[in-house]
Amino acid sequence: MAISARNQLTGRIKEVKLGTVMAHIVVQVGDNEIESVITRRSAEEMNLKTGDTVTAVIKSTEVMIQK
Amino acid sequence: MAISARNQLTGRIKEVKLGTVMAHIVVQVGDNEIESVITRRSAEEMNLKTGDTVTAVIKSTEVMIQK
Amino acid sequence: MAISARNQLTGRIKEVKLGTVMAHIVVQVGDNEIESVITRRSAEEMNLKTGDTVTAVIKSTEVMIQK
Amino acid sequence: MAISARNQLTGRIKEVKLGTVMAHIVVQVGDNEIESVITRRSAEEMNLKTGDTVTAVIKSTEVMIQK
Amino acid sequence: MAISARNQLTGRIKEVKLGTVMAHIVVQVGDNEIESVITRRSAEEMNLKTGDTVTAVIKSTEVMIQK
Amino acid sequence: MAISARNQLTGRIKEVKLGTVMAHIVVQVGDNEIESVITRRSAEEMNLKTGDTVTAVIKSTEVMIQK
Repeated sequence: MAISARNQLTGRIKEVKLGTVMAHIVVQVGDNEIESVITRRSAEEMNLKTGDTVTAVIKSTEVMIQK
Repeated sequence: MAISARNQLTGRIKEVKLGTVMAHIVVQVGDNEIESVITRRSAEEMNLKTGDTVTAVIKSTEVMIQK
Repeated sequence: MAISARNQLTGRIKEVKLGTVMAHIVVQVGDNEIESVITRRSAEEMNLKTGDTVTAVIKSTEVMIQK
Repeated sequence: MAISARNQLTGRIKEVKLGTVMAHIVVQVGDNEIESVITRRSAEEMNLKTGDTVTAVIKSTEVMIQK
Repeated sequence: MAISARNQLTGRIKEVKLGTVMAHIVVQVGDNEIESVITRRSAEEMNLKTGDTVTAVIKSTEVMIQK
Repeated sequence: MAISARNQLTGRIKEVKLGTVMAHIVVQVGDNEIESVITRRSAEEMNLKTGDTVTAVIKSTEVMIQK
């Protein structure tokens, strides 16, 4: 299955921090760190943990350009 | 000045495609292509063109995780 | 593979309208119509057309509540 | 009053979970569950509780398509 | 009816520009201009035109802070 | 440096509330309050506090219109 979101960056989870409702995930992608905030429920249901190989998915309408 | 958006990926513009209202920008960041959709007005006012060094900026709440 | 986005609504495409940069997709999900705007490129690469069975995917941070 | 957001799904609140800053709301809409993350303040000011009839509102630019 | 989106800025439409799929709306709110991109369909169905009094609605998770 | 986000509203921070993962920031902009939810990490790294002059930055695709 394909998803329309055009940005899909694969890397390894470097850190998972759980709050009551949200979770902060840091993914190492090449030389960059990608940071994601998702629900704690998704983090738990997907059993996200340091070292997992994951893909950060970002819809192109959410990407701004700075110059 | 700093912005709260935690994802800031620097690269070079590979393609600019203008529509009537929107513009599609492709940025080469290391081995990855980052795609962005912004207003045509911003693309024109910032004079975005192939070869420009730019930074793609993404709020962490917009990043999903796939595993 | 699982994605962290908690809203995944499966239905059939009722309409695809292409612009220069964007595409407007209408999906019938049960009694509701779900409308999506994605890039024209994704619509073309995924060959989206009327009658296709697809899943609308929405991150929970993008959902507001009205009462 | 009308709002430009094209997705408006009416259902009943099935669960409200409050964090310090955010709140996680689950709404039953026909056969689907819609999950929303809003501020705790909005959840409290609107007095959202299980059983309330509410409408989930989603801007079409936030909806991805998976096929 | 109340909506959970915490930012609601009332002003007058200064400009409407229609594309094939999207529409660019400029709203004068006090001393600031607020710019919005919505679907052309919503702009047409709501009959948005210069001079209309409207409210720009923004979910707080979409607002970044620069300092 | 310029950013493509077309909405940039300058004001003073009126309140900062920290959760475990997220932070809720209220900014007084003229007669309006703008509310933002960012990561706690950004709030701490930027040392955001009441009285700071900041700019709320919003991508135009995130702005809805109500009429």
